[in-house]
Amino acid sequence: MSEIFIGIDLGGTNIKIGCFDSDIKLISKTSTPTRADMGPEIVVDKMAETVEKLLTDAGLSLKDVIAAGIGTPGPAKYKEGIIIKSTNMPEFKNVPIRQMLSGKLGKPVVFDNDANVACWGEYAVGAGKGVDDMVFFTLGTGIGGGIINNGKLLHGCGDNAAELGHIIIHQNGRKCNCGQKGCAEAYASANSTAKRATEAIEAGAKSSLKKVLDQKGKITSKDVYEHLAAGDELAKKITDETAESLAILCINMLHTTEPKRIVFAGGMIAAGDVLLNRIKDYFNEHIWPLKKETVQIRFATLGEDAGIIGAAALAKQASDQGELKSR
Amino acid sequence: MSEIFIGIDLGGTNIKIGCFDSDIKLISKTSTPTRADMGPEIVVDKMAETVEKLLTDAGLSLKDVIAAGIGTPGPAKYKEGIIIKSTNMPEFKNVPIRQMLSGKLGKPVVFDNDANVACWGEYAVGAGKGVDDMVFFTLGTGIGGGIINNGKLLHGCGDNAAELGHIIIHQNGRKCNCGQKGCAEAYASANSTAKRATEAIEAGAKSSLKKVLDQKGKITSKDVYEHLAAGDELAKKITDETAESLAILCINMLHTTEPKRIVFAGGMIAAGDVLLNRIKDYFNEHIWPLKKETVQIRFATLGEDAGIIGAAALAKQASDQGELKSR
Repeated sequence: MSEIFIGIDLGGTNIKIGCFDSDIKLISKTSTPTRADMGPEIVVDKMAETVEKLLTDAGLSLKDVIAAGIGTPGPAKYKEGIIIKSTNMPEFKNVPIRQMLSGKLGKPVVFDNDANVACWGEYAVGAGKGVDDMVFFTLGTGIGGGIINNGKLLHGCGDNAAELGHIIIHQNGRKCNCGQKGCAEAYASANSTAKRATEAIEAGAKSSLKKVLDQKGKITSKDVYEHLAAGDELAKKITDETAESLAILCINMLHTTEPKRIVFAGGMIAAGDVLLNRIKDYFNEHIWPLKKETVQIRFATLGEDAGIIGAAALAKQASDQGELKSR
Repeated sequence: MSEIFIGIDLGGTNIKIGCFDSDIKLISKTSTPTRADMGPEIVVDKMAETVEKLLTDAGLSLKDVIAAGIGTPGPAKYKEGIIIKSTNMPEFKNVPIRQMLSGKLGKPVVFDNDANVACWGEYAVGAGKGVDDMVFFTLGTGIGGGIINNGKLLHGCGDNAAELGHIIIHQNGRKCNCGQKGCAEAYASANSTAKRATEAIEAGAKSSLKKVLDQKGKITSKDVYEHLAAGDELAKKITDETAESLAILCINMLHTTEPKRIVFAGGMIAAGDVLLNRIKDYFNEHIWPLKKETVQIRFATLGEDAGIIGAAALAKQASDQGELKSR
């Protein structure tokens, strides 16, 4: 009998499922449309069927599985295993997802939010491997976060810790989508980066990005990095501002949970070393000179599979810690 | 035989020592000049003698003692029990304080920085009692901090977590003593509060504080609160700015470690409800409206004894957790 762990990434569009050995090496994976409109029971049924098929195709069965992990976007009561509501899955209200899935599979299920799950994946087998204290940022539409302290995910009193994009770095600054002012997310997410570029062009800044705006009606962060690579000055300025805000976030986390390593993930890291190096430059420019800081700032390495890898790795950890029985 | 815990607060000027029962109720306490200039060996000898005398005077002896706790200002290697250096005790360089004191007393000794120790005191028996997740700020010359996560002090990868005064809330803002720009400490410590009042008066602002500045040559945060109470408009503005910065710090910590309770300590809380209520007002003004936040913001209750209480309580916790043997 093998020791298999299942990792599930439940998104509004697709359900990704991976089957892993006890070293969290991927054996096989699959993806299926979520069809959240069919309601939670049908979605969970499909999830369980897909897991079984994935196992069968790999010459395995549910008997080989120790546990499964699942990540979803919040808000949820993770300790209780309940999805409270979901922006992308309006039919999912107060769904006891952990209990439902565990019932269908006949296996213990571990449940956490998608940013924490991806954070744990990078920590266990990706860019965070080898340290005990890590901070994780995802740079996408918004900025998500995860904190590993002393080898464990930090959850906070209500399971809502590590909303790191909403750390305020400019008191009374730019309006954030969350309603606060001056959040890091309002400056440095992929959307905010694109938005600042658009605003600058609309205010008359010269840039090769103007043509993109005129032709497509909008600019993405990807456009910004492509034009940066081509030498556009405005794209450089916008990228610098993003990097500076991310550096301030790094400094704030260093003074809070003191990670050994900080890992950035999400679509925006496709910008590559030009972004990473500017973050490091600004970190060195802004950090106190009191003592030498050796925190390592890196980009994630797991890409799109971080969700399924992290979910399986969380299930593995719960198994290792003897925490599966209490679920 | 009683179960006694000793708490020691080693400062540059005085050593405070308390003797506590296993409920961390104070039995007796004393204070003696540190005389750090005599060097660490003589200071540790005196510390041990003072502990013994305190016990004898209370009808107890070292036989009754389970363990001692000691807090000092950083920087130190707390896990290794070594004071690296001390601004106020220049003779203390690479002093293995835990081992030295433990050798003299013949008892296990627990060692942490003064802000963490005071944080633990408030958590164990003061304003933080009854919650598992707490954040602690001391408002003095600077702003110190402590974080309790899931019932434990958060230390970070190098024992330097929770330097919360150096969270940047104004990117490229006021210069902080630490060398960074825009730290919360540069706006909201007792010294920064007094400094902002002084700058405003020197820039021509009308205030009853001008007389203080003219007569004494300087303004303290205590002056600011006294003139606030007397109705001075500038004192009100300065206090509001302090409260607003502290509220931003609270929001940033809520989005990071998600405490159930935030506790402020230090000389500045003598300002009383007028300051506390303004912090709460600004918190409510700046926090996101996404979901109702129920974090409790309070002032510390242990006063000057927080150091000895916290040190004894840390020793008690290490004993309860079976962690004394490994020290």
